[in-house]
Amino acid sequence: MAIRTPITVAYGDGIGPEIMQATLNILKAAKADIDIEIIEVGEKIYQQGFTSGIPDSAWESLKRTKVLLKGPITTPQGKGYKSLNVTLRKTLGLYANVRPCVALAPFVPTKHPEMNLVIVRENEEGTYTGIEHRQTDEAYQCLKLVTRTGCERIVHYAFEYARKFNRKKVTCLTKDNIMKMTDGIFHQVFNEIAKEYPDIQTEHLIVDIGTALVAAQPERFDVIVTSNLYGDILSDVAAQVAGSVGLAGSANVGDQMAMFEAIHGSAPDIAGKNIANPSGLLNGAIQMLIHINQPDIAATIENAWLRTLEDGIHTGDIYSAERSKKRAHTDEFANAVVERLGQKPQHFKPVVYQAGSQAKIICYGERKKTIAKKELVGIDVFIDNRDMSPNELGEKLTAIAAPLELIVVTSRGLKIWPNCMIESPIANHCSCRFQGSKNLSAITHQDIIKLLQRMDAAGFDVIKTENLYTFDGQIGFSLAQGQ
Amino acid sequence: MAIRTPITVAYGDGIGPEIMQATLNILKAAKADIDIEIIEVGEKIYQQGFTSGIPDSAWESLKRTKVLLKGPITTPQGKGYKSLNVTLRKTLGLYANVRPCVALAPFVPTKHPEMNLVIVRENEEGTYTGIEHRQTDEAYQCLKLVTRTGCERIVHYAFEYARKFNRKKVTCLTKDNIMKMTDGIFHQVFNEIAKEYPDIQTEHLIVDIGTALVAAQPERFDVIVTSNLYGDILSDVAAQVAGSVGLAGSANVGDQMAMFEAIHGSAPDIAGKNIANPSGLLNGAIQMLIHINQPDIAATIENAWLRTLEDGIHTGDIYSAERSKKRAHTDEFANAVVERLGQKPQHFKPVVYQAGSQAKIICYGERKKTIAKKELVGIDVFIDNRDMSPNELGEKLTAIAAPLELIVVTSRGLKIWPNCMIESPIANHCSCRFQGSKNLSAITHQDIIKLLQRMDAAGFDVIKTENLYTFDGQIGFSLAQGQ
Repeated sequence: MAIRTPITVAYGDGIGPEIMQATLNILKAAKADIDIEIIEVGEKIYQQGFTSGIPDSAWESLKRTKVLLKGPITTPQGKGYKSLNVTLRKTLGLYANVRPCVALAPFVPTKHPEMNLVIVRENEEGTYTGIEHRQTDEAYQCLKLVTRTGCERIVHYAFEYARKFNRKKVTCLTKDNIMKMTDGIFHQVFNEIAKEYPDIQTEHLIVDIGTALVAAQPERFDVIVTSNLYGDILSDVAAQVAGSVGLAGSANVGDQMAMFEAIHGSAPDIAGKNIANPSGLLNGAIQMLIHINQPDIAATIENAWLRTLEDGIHTGDIYSAERSKKRAHTDEFANAVVERLGQKPQHFKPVVYQAGSQAKIICYGERKKTIAKKELVGIDVFIDNRDMSPNELGEKLTAIAAPLELIVVTSRGLKIWPNCMIESPIANHCSCRFQGSKNLSAITHQDIIKLLQRMDAAGFDVIKTENLYTFDGQIGFSLAQGQ
Repeated sequence: MAIRTPITVAYGDGIGPEIMQATLNILKAAKADIDIEIIEVGEKIYQQGFTSGIPDSAWESLKRTKVLLKGPITTPQGKGYKSLNVTLRKTLGLYANVRPCVALAPFVPTKHPEMNLVIVRENEEGTYTGIEHRQTDEAYQCLKLVTRTGCERIVHYAFEYARKFNRKKVTCLTKDNIMKMTDGIFHQVFNEIAKEYPDIQTEHLIVDIGTALVAAQPERFDVIVTSNLYGDILSDVAAQVAGSVGLAGSANVGDQMAMFEAIHGSAPDIAGKNIANPSGLLNGAIQMLIHINQPDIAATIENAWLRTLEDGIHTGDIYSAERSKKRAHTDEFANAVVERLGQKPQHFKPVVYQAGSQAKIICYGERKKTIAKKELVGIDVFIDNRDMSPNELGEKLTAIAAPLELIVVTSRGLKIWPNCMIESPIANHCSCRFQGSKNLSAITHQDIIKLLQRMDAAGFDVIKTENLYTFDGQIGFSLAQGQ
């Protein structure tokens, strides 16, 4: 007999306690080998003054068990409160969000009964790092940050997931026709890692058409891997199209820790009424059981759950006079699943999860690779320009550029000097590109500091800088439109 | 009799010439008051060495007429070629992309026969400004840039459009729960401008659920206004769900110029066969006629086109044995529309466009407003850190910070000093926040330059800087997760 796996459980807010109870009852009846540690997070904890909704004691349990099954949380309105989910994801390094989206027709209405896809979303990077600055009266910025390691982890995870769950194809979505560097590296890493999985089909789609196809023909997808923002939008599209927002679970996985939950919220309007559908959290728990290497029990529960749906035992959210036999309360639904443990679905295909093998997907961290030779060749100096015309700007900056050379001035990515390409430029937020020479000769940090000194003396209001580098001789910066 | 309006026409590549000919034949038969100037853009021009696909002479025509009706373009594969559409949009300041998405059931299959919405997408800002930098071996960045004026223009356009076309509701989509500044300003401007249109209903949705609802319940939307990337994804989702990718037109509108086109591509595989559907370009031309204040002719053509679809005269792309009476060639379809000029549709509601009034939507540029008092209070200095632990970093930087103070060090938006909140930080790309004091006292550019001098002397590899400002005393920068 294996040693019981300790897991941390948070009941959550709103309908959280009742759906968690239902879920735990099912896990217990199915003889899941788990030892439960309960922590309190969410509304009450926020009110005690913990702005992230989690007390210090809860972290101890998480560090011990490394697995969290979490009910939905209510984040209080008002400034200063931070999303508990964002805090957990970032602090625990949960880089992969895994969202199976499966149609359950005819028992749950959908226009796409054949849909069965999994979205693997990068969870830590992109514009969601929350690095924002306002530096002129007009302009607001957010930094989109993508690392090679971040791309490698999530793409590797997606392929390992596909292999493990007998999925045949991995589709990568990026917008690398526009964002050639940040989305380009994601696509490039996808191509590199795909070669290690010759047994799995691959495709790449631009995210706009890819998302449109998930909306209109979700049947054509299997595993989808994409970056943070795209995956966020796509996950909601897929769940909505599947009709399964109320029934789907989600995993957030890192190298050390993992968190499992329902994708829906805490639904305070129906809390305490014993009418909520526990299926979303139960599906999260099924993903957890696979993760802690209890795949047989996961399959037993999932098959019993499918059979319950087939038998027409439905909570109010999916009840209909035609399709349902019984409108079940939360606890009745859970009991019906318990009664069916050991039974197989007859309409749906019974699920089987590989038993025995280690079920957790281990991704490599940073892959061994050579470090490219980096050389400083210039700088983009951004200024808050309230008065000067593009030509004035160009002249004044040229006069103080030496020993560097002013190459181009842009505003919102468009060239405004030399030869302004737009009729009425909005030139408050300008980027002035200086290089050692047009041939990318090397410069030093001292060259930059002295340039900044001269610009300050000439009255320019410098607001930000971006150094320009080459890596192994390849330029590491975009050219301006029109440059 | 009015003076004829000069317009510029580009036939384009692939199926462009035949669908443009069909469209112009319909416009001529409907007595559109236009004088056509033909320019050559696209494939041939690329091959002549114009990397943007447009020769200098074509710009002259555009500046004269300020209106372009454009067939689809083939951008050659290979490096160095730039998208003509991106060039035209950016150079001509076409800030609004307007995409009506209307279901044409039962003649064009869709799961959403009641769908009738318009997407008004900001066209110039966000991550699509293409400002990207790689500054460490690991990290790639893209700047998301949003201006207040950019938000004001597009939101104002959306409300003016709604009023002009008798639309009842404008929905705004942002992700301002995460990007509180860049998406926050878009939402805030939406709320401000909405007050000027009390006759129009408004709502705001987070873009993930908003896009999901467009996919699953498009009938609930009317006009949608959103930023560049979200609008790009959303436009494709909406067109796909409407089933109208092959039939929809699009307008790109700026203060001075406007461009009208089909949303589909040049389809080289069926070029020259006289089988392409000219409806997409025709719908672009209908938007153009309204823009140049010929709304009666626009309505006459659109009604005849709807009637043609109802009469079962369909090109191959939408032909079906059940729904169609005749499989028409491109020219036959155009002739069928011409024959029906003056007739009204019977299944669809006939369209009426306000006659007489100036049809072009004029948006204000920058709105009169006070400039906030801006004060420099600190700087985020980003470094490429290959070796140092978070604690080492914190200590060494603190030692050289004075007279400034090191407040926090972050990596990918997460605090790594003081009190590192993550277990195994990826700390190559670090942001070090220095302020005059925790109380936001003012500092000078000289303070910054001297700090950079000290950091260089201490061997730190500075890669970028972001100044920290307050505006009228409000902080203009995000706090780190965990700060």
